[in-house]
Amino acid sequence: MKSFNVGIIGFGTVGTGVFKVLQSFPDIKIKKIAVKNVNKKRNIENFDTNLLTDNPYEIVNSPDIDIVIEVAGGVNPTFDILKAALNNKKHIVTANKELLAKKGSELFQIAKQNNVIILYEAAVAGGIPIIMPVKTILCANKINRIAGILNGTTNYILTKMTEKELSYETALKQAQDLGYAETDPTGDVEGFDAAYKLAILSTISFNKKIDINKIYREGITKIKANDIKSAKELGYTIKLIALGQRLENGKIDVRVHPMLVAKKHLLAQVKNATNSIMLSGYPVGDLVFTGAGAGAEPTASSVVGDLLVLVADLETTSNPIPQAVCNHTETAEQIDIGDTFNEYYVSITASNHPGAIGFIGTLFGKNNINISTIMQKGINEDNTAEIIVITERAKEADVQNALKELLKSESIKNIDNLLRVMN
Amino acid sequence: MKSFNVGIIGFGTVGTGVFKVLQSFPDIKIKKIAVKNVNKKRNIENFDTNLLTDNPYEIVNSPDIDIVIEVAGGVNPTFDILKAALNNKKHIVTANKELLAKKGSELFQIAKQNNVIILYEAAVAGGIPIIMPVKTILCANKINRIAGILNGTTNYILTKMTEKELSYETALKQAQDLGYAETDPTGDVEGFDAAYKLAILSTISFNKKIDINKIYREGITKIKANDIKSAKELGYTIKLIALGQRLENGKIDVRVHPMLVAKKHLLAQVKNATNSIMLSGYPVGDLVFTGAGAGAEPTASSVVGDLLVLVADLETTSNPIPQAVCNHTETAEQIDIGDTFNEYYVSITASNHPGAIGFIGTLFGKNNINISTIMQKGINEDNTAEIIVITERAKEADVQNALKELLKSESIKNIDNLLRVMN
Repeated sequence: MKSFNVGIIGFGTVGTGVFKVLQSFPDIKIKKIAVKNVNKKRNIENFDTNLLTDNPYEIVNSPDIDIVIEVAGGVNPTFDILKAALNNKKHIVTANKELLAKKGSELFQIAKQNNVIILYEAAVAGGIPIIMPVKTILCANKINRIAGILNGTTNYILTKMTEKELSYETALKQAQDLGYAETDPTGDVEGFDAAYKLAILSTISFNKKIDINKIYREGITKIKANDIKSAKELGYTIKLIALGQRLENGKIDVRVHPMLVAKKHLLAQVKNATNSIMLSGYPVGDLVFTGAGAGAEPTASSVVGDLLVLVADLETTSNPIPQAVCNHTETAEQIDIGDTFNEYYVSITASNHPGAIGFIGTLFGKNNINISTIMQKGINEDNTAEIIVITERAKEADVQNALKELLKSESIKNIDNLLRVMN
Repeated sequence: MKSFNVGIIGFGTVGTGVFKVLQSFPDIKIKKIAVKNVNKKRNIENFDTNLLTDNPYEIVNSPDIDIVIEVAGGVNPTFDILKAALNNKKHIVTANKELLAKKGSELFQIAKQNNVIILYEAAVAGGIPIIMPVKTILCANKINRIAGILNGTTNYILTKMTEKELSYETALKQAQDLGYAETDPTGDVEGFDAAYKLAILSTISFNKKIDINKIYREGITKIKANDIKSAKELGYTIKLIALGQRLENGKIDVRVHPMLVAKKHLLAQVKNATNSIMLSGYPVGDLVFTGAGAGAEPTASSVVGDLLVLVADLETTSNPIPQAVCNHTETAEQIDIGDTFNEYYVSITASNHPGAIGFIGTLFGKNNINISTIMQKGINEDNTAEIIVITERAKEADVQNALKELLKSESIKNIDNLLRVMN
């Protein structure tokens, strides 16, 4: 085996994990590690601090380095650094989902011009092998649908809300105390993180460029303990689902939002910070991949896996891994959320008034929405009633219209929540 | 893209599935298909019967063919045919688990001598990507354990026994009527099929040659409706599990037998003919892969996937896919079932006699077996009692001894079943 020289950009949790795992592979030589603060104490035995630099360009401009591992994250200044690396003919292994979701198209173009490649298994679902399987062993398939739990933080919060009947706020606090959620949890709880991963996975699954700005996104902050309870009573559990579908007309439906998932569905069984992806295609049918979606060690499995595949290939050819080249010239036609079709869960507060349920039923019918379940959950102290409706498959725009019309009636006090349902 | 010529050996369900999927890949030219009976009517539109031959050597000896797809199955005469193909420098894509489990070592040796490769994703778990992920993107890992539901027929039978409370015989009959089980079901229900797949998967997971004859194997024919019922009451479901473990002393524990799987375990959720594999390693942690383990289309996904990866690689190098080369010089030291450690479920028929439970407890204790649950299930008409024991982790040889000693007592009428438990 030839020996290969790598530089690592970023030395936080994941970078340190990668460094430790690479100790078992002596043919991979770590030449330089770019960090923010070279003086920070590192918790690694016999660590040679001479490896550290605070200038990442010492890595990407070094003639001595073959492959750049980027685990720093973010778009600025990482985009410029990796552009320089590619233009210097370095291959890249990255875990940076935000960068790939926002700037992947540009980066892959520059990589192609320089005849180098970018591998990014770790950018989606941490340790779960999904990017390379889709690009290699599953490449005979036409993939029609991906549905995944791609964010561990929100799945942890929803699991605790379900199992311990906690409020969103209490569950978030616990997740923060345990280090599952950041002090500013926006990236996770508002669905940004899941949307980045979905953009990357949809691009390779549907072979079309996905615009991250056109992905409909709803987080979990508006899920109430009451919704979790009603869902449970109806045989569902609430999950933040990243959904990508290729429609019959060739358009692409990609979105991230909470869903009521039927308890018998394999995704409903996925608990705590675990990630899971269901992929459906022809001829393979349905596949489910489950595992740790974050953490130093699982992420290092994917980073070092990419690296080992790359160096094994570089030993036999100067034109490595043809399947790994991203070359989607076609742009996906992404549909608006209003044009999607779903089953729905609607939670309504109505006056305690004998006609309320009939009124809801009539108004839904007028908007082409069939109701499959309707449940009134007793009378509140203020003489209002909580009504839960589950609909059959309907068009989102029709449902939004129906809800607007409902609110015009005096007997409807509030639409407490609207969620989509996966059976 | 260059164009590649392939020959297909075997044209049953899987072969026909592969043929159909390959119609979407015009750069792969099917030159010849070897069948038993060239005159048999084939249910394929516009099929050119000139492709057929009843002599597979027309394929393996043809200078015109680059890659041989083998989906005929069995060891004889397939072994000799594939040996000839390798010696003629043909790459092979095969779904033949029995052949690889019994003769893989020889075939991989011959492939290596001829600088060609054998790909076999379809041989284990049909459409589920597992072989290539283990050999590529997961190659940074030390895999310590695999536990899988690798046989759809037995999982279907056990699911029906559980959900509809059927006897083994009735569930088998239904599986046969639906085409899930063969007229002679031995290969499935006695665990041979799962053992072949386990041998292949263990070899690549532990990087050591596994001797199929040393894999302990127990089928599902002795599972009674009563066992399913007791397991359910205790929070378990019974599954045929293919288990491979790397022990701390470096020895390998590989076996196929039914197990009580805790209901919260992801493998317990896998129903009907679905397959699932849990893989545990460092640094990735636990991964679970679930999907269709058989059937024309899922199997074709893996066969054509292997083929497309191979041809993409052959376009850039004459020395393809280094990770795909099997080169295990070391032979696994496989331990005997008596030396394994497990938790156990024991079903005992005892005389209805006040000392029976005490006697069992004392005797188990004497044999270093701690009991975690003991349950007497009422008194039978013949004045016997059914007693269910769940033990803590104990050595199999100790458990076998205890059961032998139990049977010497007049108060113990029968050991109805001994099963292992996975929590």
